[in-house]
Amino acid sequence: MMPSRQVVLGAGKRVAPFVHRTPVLTSRLLNELSGAEVFFKCENLQKMGAFKMRGAINVIQQLSKAQKEAGVVTHSSGNFGQALALAANNLGVKAYIVMPSSAPIVKIEAVKAYGGLVTITAPSLEAREKSAADIVKEKGAVFLHPSNDLQVILGQGTAALELLEDQPNLEYIMSPVGGGGLIAGTALAAHYLGTNCRVIGGEPMEVDDAYRSLKSGKIAYNASTDTIADGLKTNLGDKNFPIIRELVPEIIRVEEEEIISAMKLIWERMKLVIEPSSAVPFAALLKEKEKFINKRIGIILSGGNVELSNLPF
Amino acid sequence: MMPSRQVVLGAGKRVAPFVHRTPVLTSRLLNELSGAEVFFKCENLQKMGAFKMRGAINVIQQLSKAQKEAGVVTHSSGNFGQALALAANNLGVKAYIVMPSSAPIVKIEAVKAYGGLVTITAPSLEAREKSAADIVKEKGAVFLHPSNDLQVILGQGTAALELLEDQPNLEYIMSPVGGGGLIAGTALAAHYLGTNCRVIGGEPMEVDDAYRSLKSGKIAYNASTDTIADGLKTNLGDKNFPIIRELVPEIIRVEEEEIISAMKLIWERMKLVIEPSSAVPFAALLKEKEKFINKRIGIILSGGNVELSNLPF
Repeated sequence: MMPSRQVVLGAGKRVAPFVHRTPVLTSRLLNELSGAEVFFKCENLQKMGAFKMRGAINVIQQLSKAQKEAGVVTHSSGNFGQALALAANNLGVKAYIVMPSSAPIVKIEAVKAYGGLVTITAPSLEAREKSAADIVKEKGAVFLHPSNDLQVILGQGTAALELLEDQPNLEYIMSPVGGGGLIAGTALAAHYLGTNCRVIGGEPMEVDDAYRSLKSGKIAYNASTDTIADGLKTNLGDKNFPIIRELVPEIIRVEEEEIISAMKLIWERMKLVIEPSSAVPFAALLKEKEKFINKRIGIILSGGNVELSNLPF
Repeated sequence: MMPSRQVVLGAGKRVAPFVHRTPVLTSRLLNELSGAEVFFKCENLQKMGAFKMRGAINVIQQLSKAQKEAGVVTHSSGNFGQALALAANNLGVKAYIVMPSSAPIVKIEAVKAYGGLVTITAPSLEAREKSAADIVKEKGAVFLHPSNDLQVILGQGTAALELLEDQPNLEYIMSPVGGGGLIAGTALAAHYLGTNCRVIGGEPMEVDDAYRSLKSGKIAYNASTDTIADGLKTNLGDKNFPIIRELVPEIIRVEEEEIISAMKLIWERMKLVIEPSSAVPFAALLKEKEKFINKRIGIILSGGNVELSNLPF
């Protein structure tokens, strides 16, 4: 059931015209600190501030003409709602975004500014799912999942495709693990485009469901989600877990203070605004750096959507 | 006395191997806000976090063999000391950096980490100048000025050379004005490499010495220097002022709150850590945006060395 090389590369061609080709940056000091040669793929500099734009662009393009006319729908309090709204807008498709009443006004305004049609519901998952289902029923819109959808996964993988075009000899790529879309897409890209390039996940200890899933061979869940890396609270799904299980040999778990410290290093030394989730793979590298001495390592800096008035340092 | 096209382009070739080719980034939202098409040259992502690396690299390379053996000296509490230490280190030259006892420990440590030989003096300009003069006398080291030196000016201009290679049809380039090295170098680059590309300065109202210098035709000074843009407190010099007078038609002055607001926009929307000085040209664009409607504008984001624990927002 693994998508073919041609399918993986095809996503790259489809997505490229609609996204920024984000830069790959390096830092002498962070290389010295880690003992490795690190290449940061700056998806925090992507449109709407995160890699999620890639998956949204890819999945919408794969819809039929009738589906495109009916529009797309998702429920999201975070980056995927914004990404879907902006991607749909670029492709001339209507996007219905169900958002919880607890979402920050600024995020709701951002979705509206991108042309998204916002429905506000109660914050519970049930209310959000019902509201999205109603829109599917009434408008015929296509429900899109932010991470457990093969076309989304392939879209997210295009960041790693670009990274490997720029740096073909990477020995590792490290990615955060949340819902699993980014790391599954990254693993597919590395599988077909890398030369012996292994993909390693970084995950907060507090929400280590993917780590446990990989150990047990079954999708695990989190009893609590008390992490600063708010993009990584979600669980794997039946579309991305088989890919991760096949292609990701290891997930490294990090503590909250390790995430904050890695985040601060990247802000201070690389002059990049990244969100806490994005600091997790670099924190993982620093934590187990003896494994990676002198290796060439790509790291996906997944996003930069953070509240400046509420920094952890 | 204007340097030739060949001399200006020569600096580009000399500097390139020792610096990052920094990315040129755009933002749909900031284009909408300004009404212009803006291309940000990200020198905050340069080595040691600022464009100053360019001038330091260029000036050291132009020294004679005997001068290189004797080493270089400057006094600096800021970016140029770090830049000179790192550049000298790259080129195998000794760098004596005189720093005031009031300088933050972190900056002193940074200079040392780059291999600079630090001398701490009393904070007064007199003490710093005397200490540097002593080193010139004792070691035979060459004193280098951070902005009023033609080779430094030419080095700083290489950021604009790269920007114009990437975006040849810019109608304006906007640069902050402090000691005058960056804007003079930028103006030379635009003069020879641009096609009718005008260079406009941005300057804090609180330290508007360059604005007044341009009006009066004579180098002016600041009675006080109460601005958040701490990189822009210095005055023009006899080497850069004639170039600025000839090639820079206008300097736009901005208030402190305009600087902070532009800085916040760039952090939030572009996900870039920039120092307050770097926000000044974009603040100037927003302030007089009716002049620049639909124009293609380059902006030099000069640096990103800012204390994260002391942000103005």
